[in-house]
Amino acid sequence: MNMLYHVSQDDFKSILGAKLSAIEKTRIFATLARINTLYMIAKAGSGHIGSSFSSMDIFSWLHLNVLEEGGVFFSSKGHDAPGLYSVLIGQGKLEYDNIHKLRRLHGLPGHPDVGTACMETNTGSLGMGVSKAKGMVRANRLDGKQGHIYVLTGDGELQEGQFWESLPGAVNGKFEEITVIVDYNKIQSDTWVRDVSDLGDLEGKLSSYGWHVQRCDGHNLEELSSSFDTAKTIRNKPQIIIADTIKGSGVSFMEAKAMSKGDGFYRFHSGAPSLDDYEKAAQELIKKANNMLVAVGFATLNIEVVERESLSDPQGNIQKLIPTYEKALHEIGSRRKDIVVLDADLMIDCGLLSFRNSYPERFIECGIAEQDMVSQAGALALKGKLPISHSFACFLATRANEQIFNNASENTKCIYVGSLAGILPASPGHSHQMVRDISALGGVPGLTLIEPSCEREVAMMLEYAVKKNPQSTYIRLVSIPCVVPYDLPDGYELEEGKGVALTNGDDAVLFAYGPVMLPEAYKAAELLRNKYDFGLKVINLPWLNRIDRDWLKTIIGDTRRVFTLDNHLLNGGQGERIGSAIAECGLAVNIDFKRLGLSKIPECGRNDEVLAFHGFDAFGIVHLLLGN
Amino acid sequence: MNMLYHVSQDDFKSILGAKLSAIEKTRIFATLARINTLYMIAKAGSGHIGSSFSSMDIFSWLHLNVLEEGGVFFSSKGHDAPGLYSVLIGQGKLEYDNIHKLRRLHGLPGHPDVGTACMETNTGSLGMGVSKAKGMVRANRLDGKQGHIYVLTGDGELQEGQFWESLPGAVNGKFEEITVIVDYNKIQSDTWVRDVSDLGDLEGKLSSYGWHVQRCDGHNLEELSSSFDTAKTIRNKPQIIIADTIKGSGVSFMEAKAMSKGDGFYRFHSGAPSLDDYEKAAQELIKKANNMLVAVGFATLNIEVVERESLSDPQGNIQKLIPTYEKALHEIGSRRKDIVVLDADLMIDCGLLSFRNSYPERFIECGIAEQDMVSQAGALALKGKLPISHSFACFLATRANEQIFNNASENTKCIYVGSLAGILPASPGHSHQMVRDISALGGVPGLTLIEPSCEREVAMMLEYAVKKNPQSTYIRLVSIPCVVPYDLPDGYELEEGKGVALTNGDDAVLFAYGPVMLPEAYKAAELLRNKYDFGLKVINLPWLNRIDRDWLKTIIGDTRRVFTLDNHLLNGGQGERIGSAIAECGLAVNIDFKRLGLSKIPECGRNDEVLAFHGFDAFGIVHLLLGN
Repeated sequence: MNMLYHVSQDDFKSILGAKLSAIEKTRIFATLARINTLYMIAKAGSGHIGSSFSSMDIFSWLHLNVLEEGGVFFSSKGHDAPGLYSVLIGQGKLEYDNIHKLRRLHGLPGHPDVGTACMETNTGSLGMGVSKAKGMVRANRLDGKQGHIYVLTGDGELQEGQFWESLPGAVNGKFEEITVIVDYNKIQSDTWVRDVSDLGDLEGKLSSYGWHVQRCDGHNLEELSSSFDTAKTIRNKPQIIIADTIKGSGVSFMEAKAMSKGDGFYRFHSGAPSLDDYEKAAQELIKKANNMLVAVGFATLNIEVVERESLSDPQGNIQKLIPTYEKALHEIGSRRKDIVVLDADLMIDCGLLSFRNSYPERFIECGIAEQDMVSQAGALALKGKLPISHSFACFLATRANEQIFNNASENTKCIYVGSLAGILPASPGHSHQMVRDISALGGVPGLTLIEPSCEREVAMMLEYAVKKNPQSTYIRLVSIPCVVPYDLPDGYELEEGKGVALTNGDDAVLFAYGPVMLPEAYKAAELLRNKYDFGLKVINLPWLNRIDRDWLKTIIGDTRRVFTLDNHLLNGGQGERIGSAIAECGLAVNIDFKRLGLSKIPECGRNDEVLAFHGFDAFGIVHLLLGN
Repeated sequence: MNMLYHVSQDDFKSILGAKLSAIEKTRIFATLARINTLYMIAKAGSGHIGSSFSSMDIFSWLHLNVLEEGGVFFSSKGHDAPGLYSVLIGQGKLEYDNIHKLRRLHGLPGHPDVGTACMETNTGSLGMGVSKAKGMVRANRLDGKQGHIYVLTGDGELQEGQFWESLPGAVNGKFEEITVIVDYNKIQSDTWVRDVSDLGDLEGKLSSYGWHVQRCDGHNLEELSSSFDTAKTIRNKPQIIIADTIKGSGVSFMEAKAMSKGDGFYRFHSGAPSLDDYEKAAQELIKKANNMLVAVGFATLNIEVVERESLSDPQGNIQKLIPTYEKALHEIGSRRKDIVVLDADLMIDCGLLSFRNSYPERFIECGIAEQDMVSQAGALALKGKLPISHSFACFLATRANEQIFNNASENTKCIYVGSLAGILPASPGHSHQMVRDISALGGVPGLTLIEPSCEREVAMMLEYAVKKNPQSTYIRLVSIPCVVPYDLPDGYELEEGKGVALTNGDDAVLFAYGPVMLPEAYKAAELLRNKYDFGLKVINLPWLNRIDRDWLKTIIGDTRRVFTLDNHLLNGGQGERIGSAIAECGLAVNIDFKRLGLSKIPECGRNDEVLAFHGFDAFGIVHLLLGN
């Protein structure tokens, strides 16, 4: 039960060198690649199985039979990275050893990054693929280079406006060099695409844009082969292949149909399979592969077996902000009938299920369409409702940046909740590690940014946003479970621009926020006290763009060393605002002021190793503080 | 020649009260409203004639015959505000006196704002209309209210992804309450829509989305009437009416066909008509109106005649950064064949014409599609090109915010040029007054933000961005002509994070940037020296998110009073970065540090009055400085 299985490089080589038809070879290859995809995700502890498996036959056919010298393939959705890596590793295009390094520091990032061989572009939020393909075609044309550009998109991804924005240019430019394949697996993050935001007549839409449209079974290699062949013959038009696929294809109980048995949610979109599920799935795939091999006269696989690394669970007072938020939202929603909750296909991850179940009429599922969501929210506010818009911070703060400002310009009250904020989790990579939202949104007039440091502050902040703040609020939420070693004082209440001391100390004061950095700062304070007799006063300042000058003067008092610690890039973070406030208070007399935080895009990897790498674990903080 | 003409309230009343058919009445009304639209724009000195006139018959029919109690109308494009105001004034829904206050402080904003009666929402960048209509429908449904929502869009506007992103939700929600009218005048900012980015088979596209689609002549009231009647009968589906219109309709020489005679650019999109053009157009409209009135047995108009306010032209060393940029871009483009220039339908305003004419193969017109543009730029950079993307700062920095970060995450080199930056021009209103781009983009890793203070710095900055900076650069450009009273010292060169003194003085130092604030600061320094014997050292610090600490220490020296002056909101502006740097340098010993800049969204109005209102003209600056 605690074993992990992967297909060896030799087994791949032997299949790739075998005298088999392209169809037979690719079918077996794809099954082996699925075994390794599953291995990588199980070993990493997270990753997108469903999307990797629905794309697998497309990846395999393309890489083994279609892609030519000078050609480019990339996935616009990027969730399918483990599947793509696995194909490239199977082909020997990526070093085999990478199989063990998914989502690890300096390994294979959770989403594609050009720092990895064969990755042609970084995925970000969805919908950029066709635009990028067009840029590549233009560069090729300028350089007189040949080369076909293949782009894989998701189906949920087609809810993003940029996808549709990008289509006409490819037609007007007669970009016959572009073939888009839609991995039409019918399920997006939470549930069926048709239930989230129905795409309607997809073939009709795409044809009306002037693209050449085909539709095929994305798991039928004969159909894929013929579709790609046809696409190559099309002149003066970009082509799109709608490939009907099955999310989780290849493992019986992970396939989309399994969804209908449960609560209507698909369980294998992201995250790792349970030990049990892994074992069952791996055995099913291995058996299938062996049957295929035997059928064509080959030996069975020499599966490599690795013991699963046992990670000790974090110990202590584990707090989870999202379930706490879910409760608070439900509770306040029961009292305030003007609250309307909006979501952009992250209902479960953002903790919206309870509200939706109790108040379906006040719940708006917008699909992967953040701009549309935020503009709808603005109009609801104009009409007297209190809209609360949700997404991951990385999508909400930037994709809808202009719409949030537009709402602010109307002086209405809107609430935005950006989850998955900050450097952790580090495993999905930089497209999901939101460390610039304080900067991107901090300057929106009338928008207050706050971040809870623990469960207790979550409900307080929602109350503040709903009841006390006459203007708009952005609540920044860490999504990972955190060990919280501190308690907020009895009677603690939110006061705009004011924080609260979590430790005492006269040698230095450190301002931080949120349940990722504050616990490390708290532990650092303990280390400093015990080992160095150094008193560090750690302040929780949950106001990310509001600093009360009088409070700041008082809390710094006579302390001569002042630090800030941002779960954010230094540029535009809370630290800069505190620094400026210190100068404005005329406080900096002999003060040694230093800002800690990210100076570049954070690494991808396991949470503990990434925090340590950037120097923001307790030991790193001690080092940074004493290094002064 | 120096007279302006407008139709009186009485003339409107008499037509509205007359026993005429709806068609006759509306036709005359629309002609009178055109006279007043022209008056308002000529008086204001800027405004969108073409779009106001192409929409005029739609506005008039809708407001006189279609809109019912509880119904809502708003324009998503917003450029047509003068036309809409004029209709509302004619109807008496807006106070008549407003006719004299277009684009004036506390008058009628250049683009719709909910602070004005009858304005249902603020326009921002394009493409938000349908999303907002959906939000309004949802609010109505929750409240059990009736009410149809009419939204007018442009045709160029349909290049924006959000428009297409917003369509499916209205179908899935069966939003029969929404009727969209497309003012299909075939011309966008610069030239023909089909040449910028052809919309293709618009009816086919919209139908494929599941909307009920009609097409009619948008100047034929019978057809408009019948289309609106049909729309009302449609159940369970949102409706769209593609109204074929003529840009500038109503004045022979302002109509779109006039364009083909010249250089292929339409001259009446924005800006004021010449004295001559105004006189001719007004006389043509008045004659047409009188003919119509006489034909139905009415007296001719009692036209009110007003003398044109003569504004003295600014005196001094007038500098225009956009033409300077145009030359510099053309020059560097001739040397650097890897440069590719991208535009989002602002070719003329951004100064791209010379480059496009000389190097058409390296010029990409993306249409109103900033996200698509920036992602294309990213891919060009990946393939070895040096892309320079252009738009107004308000659209580029926010609409493509995520795409700019995504490019940055790939460590490629991209250049972005955001023009129309800052508080001025103030007449278009807050959707165009970009005062939060330093905040919105300042935190993008590896992106340096700079702003030239005068023509001389423009070419230096482009050289820096192209040749010296190994990473990406955002060049922030003021578009209005400015009187620049200072010279940069001989031999001045750009050095990252360092500025240059424009005046000398030991009593205080003030950091600012750009040709709007620096001239005012320079004049303030003169006033202070001459009247108050107060020495103000004005520093041009063109680096908006880079501060060299050592230079800062030196330049501040022993000065005890330090000010910053942002052409930006205080939150997230340059001043905050300088403040933080002062604290980090331990410099704030007895320093009196104060940041000047906007604390809220700036007002709309004439440049001089808005600058004075916010206290940023020379007198205001003196007051702010001495007030300390």
